[in-house]
Amino acid sequence: MATDTSKRDNRITELLRRREKHFAGSFLLYQEPVEIVRGEGIWLYDSQGNRYLDCYNNVASVGHCHPRVVEAMHRQASTLNTHTRYLNEKIIDYAAHLAGTLPEGLDVCLFCCTGTEANELAMRIARSVTGHRGAIVIEHAYHGNSTLVGELSACTYPPAERPDHIATMEPPNTYRGSFRRGATLSETELAEQYAAQADPAVRQLQDVGQGVAAFICDAIFDTQGTLDAPPDYFKGVYEKVRAAGGLCIADEVQAGFGRLGEKMWGFELYGVVPDIVTMGKPMGDGHPVAAVVTRRDIADAFMQKVIYFNTFGGNPVSAAVAETVLTVIEEEKLQQNALEVGRYLRKELDRLAEKHPLIGDIRGRGLFIGIELVKGHQTLEPAFVEAYTISEKMKDDGILIGSTGRFGNVLKIRPPLVFSRENADLLIGSLDRQLTAVLN
Amino acid sequence: MATDTSKRDNRITELLRRREKHFAGSFLLYQEPVEIVRGEGIWLYDSQGNRYLDCYNNVASVGHCHPRVVEAMHRQASTLNTHTRYLNEKIIDYAAHLAGTLPEGLDVCLFCCTGTEANELAMRIARSVTGHRGAIVIEHAYHGNSTLVGELSACTYPPAERPDHIATMEPPNTYRGSFRRGATLSETELAEQYAAQADPAVRQLQDVGQGVAAFICDAIFDTQGTLDAPPDYFKGVYEKVRAAGGLCIADEVQAGFGRLGEKMWGFELYGVVPDIVTMGKPMGDGHPVAAVVTRRDIADAFMQKVIYFNTFGGNPVSAAVAETVLTVIEEEKLQQNALEVGRYLRKELDRLAEKHPLIGDIRGRGLFIGIELVKGHQTLEPAFVEAYTISEKMKDDGILIGSTGRFGNVLKIRPPLVFSRENADLLIGSLDRQLTAVLN
Repeated sequence: MATDTSKRDNRITELLRRREKHFAGSFLLYQEPVEIVRGEGIWLYDSQGNRYLDCYNNVASVGHCHPRVVEAMHRQASTLNTHTRYLNEKIIDYAAHLAGTLPEGLDVCLFCCTGTEANELAMRIARSVTGHRGAIVIEHAYHGNSTLVGELSACTYPPAERPDHIATMEPPNTYRGSFRRGATLSETELAEQYAAQADPAVRQLQDVGQGVAAFICDAIFDTQGTLDAPPDYFKGVYEKVRAAGGLCIADEVQAGFGRLGEKMWGFELYGVVPDIVTMGKPMGDGHPVAAVVTRRDIADAFMQKVIYFNTFGGNPVSAAVAETVLTVIEEEKLQQNALEVGRYLRKELDRLAEKHPLIGDIRGRGLFIGIELVKGHQTLEPAFVEAYTISEKMKDDGILIGSTGRFGNVLKIRPPLVFSRENADLLIGSLDRQLTAVLN
Repeated sequence: MATDTSKRDNRITELLRRREKHFAGSFLLYQEPVEIVRGEGIWLYDSQGNRYLDCYNNVASVGHCHPRVVEAMHRQASTLNTHTRYLNEKIIDYAAHLAGTLPEGLDVCLFCCTGTEANELAMRIARSVTGHRGAIVIEHAYHGNSTLVGELSACTYPPAERPDHIATMEPPNTYRGSFRRGATLSETELAEQYAAQADPAVRQLQDVGQGVAAFICDAIFDTQGTLDAPPDYFKGVYEKVRAAGGLCIADEVQAGFGRLGEKMWGFELYGVVPDIVTMGKPMGDGHPVAAVVTRRDIADAFMQKVIYFNTFGGNPVSAAVAETVLTVIEEEKLQQNALEVGRYLRKELDRLAEKHPLIGDIRGRGLFIGIELVKGHQTLEPAFVEAYTISEKMKDDGILIGSTGRFGNVLKIRPPLVFSRENADLLIGSLDRQLTAVLN
């Protein structure tokens, strides 16, 4: 899959040269990189005049450059931007608003700037409050980029390098995991079997003297290929973790803020109440704002032991932006839109699945959907090259999607929440074409 | 020092009540908290109509709500805000501009959102590249709020809790440390004596098998009470750290971006070139943007081993804001202003010192000044209560300053860089009054 650079624009060549000289820290998407210069709603535009339907970016979740968000940012940035060691109404109003979207008891917010910082803080809280140091994560999980949170991110390093304060458990992958749907096991039995994977993880942490500080999990299982866990899965795991003295952290950086349609937060789909919720990406429609929400008893126990302060966290501009994003989600009924358009999209995808045997499984909720491509419905051999090629070719069609999962064979559909049925039709049209083309 | 709440505004009372219910993660400055509602240039305004001369906040370093910064943010946020996995010119332009302010060779930028994230990334790079895990920090240092960076922040926990991958060394405090100015030692000898404190730190890390991954230090020694190290101090320490196979990290979150007047970066005052430079706070005039700058060989060695990506880091809005801040520093000659007004302020403070025996020592550079208060020039007994009281009373005079140092007895003067001589005169007037009043 060598890159054909013969048609590369001089401008792109020069940008790549300068990037190579002065920049590091992220790889570019697509074999032939795209220079994005403008965004509006569901659309992104490149420097060569092409328009792309954004079916991939969950950060700009109320739409690229939402005018109300931009206006709120501008107004507040023109008025005041400082830290939370002075009183300011904005962040208190937002904290109350945000807490109101969560189950009773989860009503204290600590603000920071990124999902990594939120998960770092959640782990510091869990370790401080429980007195334990260990964490249970799902195999191939991703939770961020700091030292500790990087260690929680099992997908970023080989299992042999896992430190002894981290234990992993098998994801509840009922398509290709140890226990599968459609066989003899009921949903309840599937939940029990997968939740039981927490037992050896607990023992492992206890045996090395780390104990269980926390179980941290993303309810949509993004990096595991987007999984639909059995309904009682989290209840089972939470019970075991709490019995071991650990706290349950719901990482809602991917699943939160209405994307899953039925509920505002991913964990709500599973009827559990976590001890700590972390959130980030879509919270500020691109502005760096993130949060930890927990109970007052937990927050107080932490703050009594640890000196914690985040200079930028909860500043008035971040507060104004986040408040506007949340208001837009509510007033524009974007959670409802995720539910309805998600259902429509799912129905259309099910039709594609009947036509294209490459599609092995379709999973997810609302506007977070994974389409697993396989070479055979019995072998489940991952169709990695096909997934990669389809994603590349759809870009040439003007449609941005991604791929995920341990084998990179799960197409990821995760558009801004303003995604419409017409947008879904465009996506389906391109996907249909490329599913055919990739086999020819 | 019980708070007199009898005159507390109903609005403040209500804000405090709601804050107590829904917020955690930072303590409020001042016994009677201030509700700040507006900022403009060097001034902050509270909800009761009071105006404050800001002599404390280094984040809004080109002035609160600088119109060019606000305008750049607004324009870019209206156009595009996305991540660095698409090509975008803004962040490449900024990376080249920023690298141009640093010594040759330090020309690769990795972007993140906070100083904590920058120091986290610097440590991950240092560990990855050296294969060692240990870090040498200055006693009572502060470098941020994540798990690892919290461990580097020796001022946030008792020495008994220090993990074995951290070794501390005595700060080069020539006023009250083991080796003092004005006695028999020359500056060269002082530098040698303090740099020699790195030797046992290196041995300690090697003895426990951690080795030396990095020495990390802030050249203005903010939390140590603002220190003027002997000129050859960093040369000596860097030599020892490098001999042990470690990298030298300059934490410029506090000292960088022209605040120290003579040079753009704190380490430049000491004639050394670090392997990694971290920066944050003033970089975006309040917008959450931060960076690590290093050499290409180091960045490449890291990126080959570690999967690193920061969703918000280096987004086009952060790039536009940071580019404008750097341009404003240059075009408004704010580094030169820090030098000139800093010298004027220092001269006026020296006059106060002749009049007020509470002032034991005045240190710092440019617009980062520490004034150490003591009860006796021989005993050096820290005048903590006096420092606290003066800071509180100056607030009532409409002047915001802070206090720092291991004993909390060092007044901290660290205003936005637009600070003028007239502003300095106001500060001096209030400080003069309160230095007298505190003894009566």
